[in-house]
Amino acid sequence: MSNLKRTHTCGELRKSDAGIEVVLAGWVDSRRDHGGLIFIDLRDRYGITQIVFNPDYGGTELHKHASELRSEYVIAVKGKVTERPAGTANPNLQTGEIELLVNEMEILNRAELTPFEITSNTDVSLELRLKHRYLDLRRGEMQKHLLFRHKLCQIIRQFLDKNNFVDIETPFLTKSTPEGARDYLVPSRINPGNFYALPQSPQLFKQILMIAGFDRYFQIVRCFRDEDLRSQRQPEFTQLDLEMSFVDENDIINIIESLLVEIFDKLMGKRLKTPFPRITYDDAMALYGCDAPDLRFGMTIKDITDIGKQTDFKVFKDVAQSGGLVRGINATGCAGFSRKEIDELTALVGQFGAKGLAWFKVEENGLSSPIAKFFTQELQTNIKNRMEVKPGDLLLFVADKASVVRQSLAQLRLNLGRRLGLMKKDAFNFSWVVDFPLLEFNEELGRYDSLHHPFTSPKPEHLSILEEKPLMVKARAYDIVLNGIELGGGSIRIHDTEVQKRVFRLLNIDDVSAQKKFGFLLDALKYGAPPHGGIALGLDRFTALLLGLDDIREVIAFPKTQRATCLMTNAPSEVDGQQLKELGIAIK
Amino acid sequence: MSNLKRTHTCGELRKSDAGIEVVLAGWVDSRRDHGGLIFIDLRDRYGITQIVFNPDYGGTELHKHASELRSEYVIAVKGKVTERPAGTANPNLQTGEIELLVNEMEILNRAELTPFEITSNTDVSLELRLKHRYLDLRRGEMQKHLLFRHKLCQIIRQFLDKNNFVDIETPFLTKSTPEGARDYLVPSRINPGNFYALPQSPQLFKQILMIAGFDRYFQIVRCFRDEDLRSQRQPEFTQLDLEMSFVDENDIINIIESLLVEIFDKLMGKRLKTPFPRITYDDAMALYGCDAPDLRFGMTIKDITDIGKQTDFKVFKDVAQSGGLVRGINATGCAGFSRKEIDELTALVGQFGAKGLAWFKVEENGLSSPIAKFFTQELQTNIKNRMEVKPGDLLLFVADKASVVRQSLAQLRLNLGRRLGLMKKDAFNFSWVVDFPLLEFNEELGRYDSLHHPFTSPKPEHLSILEEKPLMVKARAYDIVLNGIELGGGSIRIHDTEVQKRVFRLLNIDDVSAQKKFGFLLDALKYGAPPHGGIALGLDRFTALLLGLDDIREVIAFPKTQRATCLMTNAPSEVDGQQLKELGIAIK
Repeated sequence: MSNLKRTHTCGELRKSDAGIEVVLAGWVDSRRDHGGLIFIDLRDRYGITQIVFNPDYGGTELHKHASELRSEYVIAVKGKVTERPAGTANPNLQTGEIELLVNEMEILNRAELTPFEITSNTDVSLELRLKHRYLDLRRGEMQKHLLFRHKLCQIIRQFLDKNNFVDIETPFLTKSTPEGARDYLVPSRINPGNFYALPQSPQLFKQILMIAGFDRYFQIVRCFRDEDLRSQRQPEFTQLDLEMSFVDENDIINIIESLLVEIFDKLMGKRLKTPFPRITYDDAMALYGCDAPDLRFGMTIKDITDIGKQTDFKVFKDVAQSGGLVRGINATGCAGFSRKEIDELTALVGQFGAKGLAWFKVEENGLSSPIAKFFTQELQTNIKNRMEVKPGDLLLFVADKASVVRQSLAQLRLNLGRRLGLMKKDAFNFSWVVDFPLLEFNEELGRYDSLHHPFTSPKPEHLSILEEKPLMVKARAYDIVLNGIELGGGSIRIHDTEVQKRVFRLLNIDDVSAQKKFGFLLDALKYGAPPHGGIALGLDRFTALLLGLDDIREVIAFPKTQRATCLMTNAPSEVDGQQLKELGIAIK
Repeated sequence: MSNLKRTHTCGELRKSDAGIEVVLAGWVDSRRDHGGLIFIDLRDRYGITQIVFNPDYGGTELHKHASELRSEYVIAVKGKVTERPAGTANPNLQTGEIELLVNEMEILNRAELTPFEITSNTDVSLELRLKHRYLDLRRGEMQKHLLFRHKLCQIIRQFLDKNNFVDIETPFLTKSTPEGARDYLVPSRINPGNFYALPQSPQLFKQILMIAGFDRYFQIVRCFRDEDLRSQRQPEFTQLDLEMSFVDENDIINIIESLLVEIFDKLMGKRLKTPFPRITYDDAMALYGCDAPDLRFGMTIKDITDIGKQTDFKVFKDVAQSGGLVRGINATGCAGFSRKEIDELTALVGQFGAKGLAWFKVEENGLSSPIAKFFTQELQTNIKNRMEVKPGDLLLFVADKASVVRQSLAQLRLNLGRRLGLMKKDAFNFSWVVDFPLLEFNEELGRYDSLHHPFTSPKPEHLSILEEKPLMVKARAYDIVLNGIELGGGSIRIHDTEVQKRVFRLLNIDDVSAQKKFGFLLDALKYGAPPHGGIALGLDRFTALLLGLDDIREVIAFPKTQRATCLMTNAPSEVDGQQLKELGIAIK
């Protein structure tokens, strides 16, 4: 046990404390020996305080002891708070007007030389940081990220509590839910041959809670997906999950907008403008080529398929006449792009299947392009009007089948946005994407899949064409998008047994397997289910975006790698044969 | 979509609202037809409002429609708030002074006859309730329990936030931690042959967070233990987990006491007296026979081994002379117990290995008992003094080896407490048990086991005898006990690599396996670990105790059975062979 009991943190002493005796504890952040004095920056989570070992004050014995100190040693010191000598105050430190004259010290723990320096900004590899996460998390940046996340969660919880939402815990050892990804399975020892699944989301449980009459539910909850990991996915992730009864789309949208206003007010010092713009799925696909548009800038996609049909330029003409699309973007002010830059953009759209990128530079007296000759003056005028040009603009076109045109232009647009500095990190442009199709056709498996999940309600006015024209049916679903990233999505759910069964059938889930998989939901729906709906937001991604970070691993204390491993603990790892035997399983 | 949009809940209308038009939505709780009127108790989470269908007001068409309504139908109604006729107010309802005269209704959903009635008090089996948990959770009692739990968690979070604790999420897909129980394993598909473990507690991660400098951490977190389940255990359970740096035992104890004061003040309307009593482990074992004493009543255990040695009563004498114990309880005022009652108590101690229960009734003029003749007057006087008797008391003794005496008298004491009504549900007697031994000897495996876990710090003054007299070493550990139930426990942790290695060696964990299992902790300790400690409280049990409930399943929304199954979803269940193949495992 330490003899020196901390009285203050390293972030709180001020000029007004001068003269009092205190005990601080923390880590040696840096040490400077200067004119017979030893200066230490003592660090804890709350700040840094300069402490001074002066042999004339603390004695030579203590001074000698202090000369042993190295970076990251943990010490407790007792001393007198003193105003710093004139001219030596440090305006960058909150405690910069004082220092501590030490007269007693205890070394609580020594430290070996750390594999990397503990500084806010670091350029060491993520691998090394993750392996020694206990050191990486000491860095000011990481402390800031996790404290921010803590505050964010507190604000969310308090807001939802104030709005009558009930935090209810749902199980982790549960049954497979059909969210499109693979489940993590957990073998049961007590029930050999049987498995739990870790939840991909609490979807069915929150619906059950609505049927149970809780009216408003929320949870900040861990979810699990066994995916082949892309950089922005983690095998376990956290979502803000909520559900409400007796509501329509607007109620969910309103509560989320109010929550975001509160978060931005309390945490970001910004006033968000509501309501957020709403864009239909069809418009988003047409104007931005994707269902998560980045609204920080314009440069929307424009269609010239009709013009393509009339030109002698074979590429446009063939595509336009065979049911494809000719669409493009006005890269405003980019007529000065070099050949090399245009080649880069061409290569980019090529990655998404486009066979080429046609371009026109807008000059004072017309369009300039190697292919301009294939377009009559009239067609050129039509293009200029359609693309809303002014001199100095660059027009870029892709002609191909719809999916290629959309995807390649969506990426082209984002690339231009980045090149031109239009995607500002401190701009937060929220939008809602609405009117999603209920289903999409899975070419590979030759069947319909839910665009969201099988519990999403079709629009009531489309119920009559559910079976005849399933792809025409719109869902009561909505996604929230921030700066081109889907933050989350939700829907009004089906609360009618018959409609639920019809949707299952459309999805090729016959009554027997529906009963086996979701029998409890179908049963529950029979006993008085209220209309209900909800939403889930990805908390890791949201936190990262608010902090202006690209990688969600910067806001997760102990993230996994892309190989789903933990470099610190070496999980997953091999286990005892005995353990597997008890579980009744074997490695194949 | 409903045409009637809810304007108020069923719990909020009052006499002052009379005259306004509102829309309510909810469940048909009950229906009474009376004098041409239909009365419905409409229920939602917030309360019950009486709604009235009067053909003179709403028309005969609506009245006919209302006659279709059955229990648990979900409806929305529009109508006028009206003061109830004189003499018909219901003082038991918060809305009892008004009713709603309905002029429009929409049936949002119908309900089949429920398998049990939705009432606060029910006597249907737990199995049926768990199978239809969506109905069980509609009952007022269950709603109350989960709302209480929500509020409890909010208070805990806000208190800890105010006290500078940071809520940090730790991983669920992690590595085996050695907490004494079996781990649930999760096969890794991406790393075939490797397994994650679900955490039994975030123990090592919270220590890592202290080493990372977060100073104060907390989490309300799910934990997992694959145990053979007793009634009070769940395979997944929730704990309040916290950890602090630069602290000793008193700091942890103080923060928990302050938290409990806050909880009792805000949630129970009670003022808790602090500090809570602290009892050493040795005293608890001597006075109560167990390490989780119920302090709601006295009747402590008293030792008469020395007297036993001197008597002619062979049972006492033999045990006392061969190193056993003779101990007993003064069942004050119980001299009137019948033969049958004493037989029951004898049978009870028999269950815990005691071969008999000796008894004396205290009468005005001496002790009365079949065995009194073996005790001289002097010895009888000694017994009376030791047991602090008064006429009308009943003395009960067990003579056996120490473990049997302790356990049987502990159970005897609790049984007497229950019989005599001394364990009041509305009394909350907290205590701390301190000065635990660091280790216990595992007879079966012939080795030492940690009494808490291997990261618990020995008392520094006992470090010198760690290897020579390990069973004499006390730990810096503390348990919090409420009404005889261990709510949680914690300790000051080892923050010194060498001490940690010495403890591992004592536990027969050699350096190689220590490095393999906890290498990251040993590594982290090298780089400047602060002194730290913490505690974990079982939230399910705590919530149940506050509500005066015996079964934690009453405060868990979706609990498992003792066979670790979910009766609603049928988890765990069989899975696709394809899924197992992808995971690289097979059922044996």
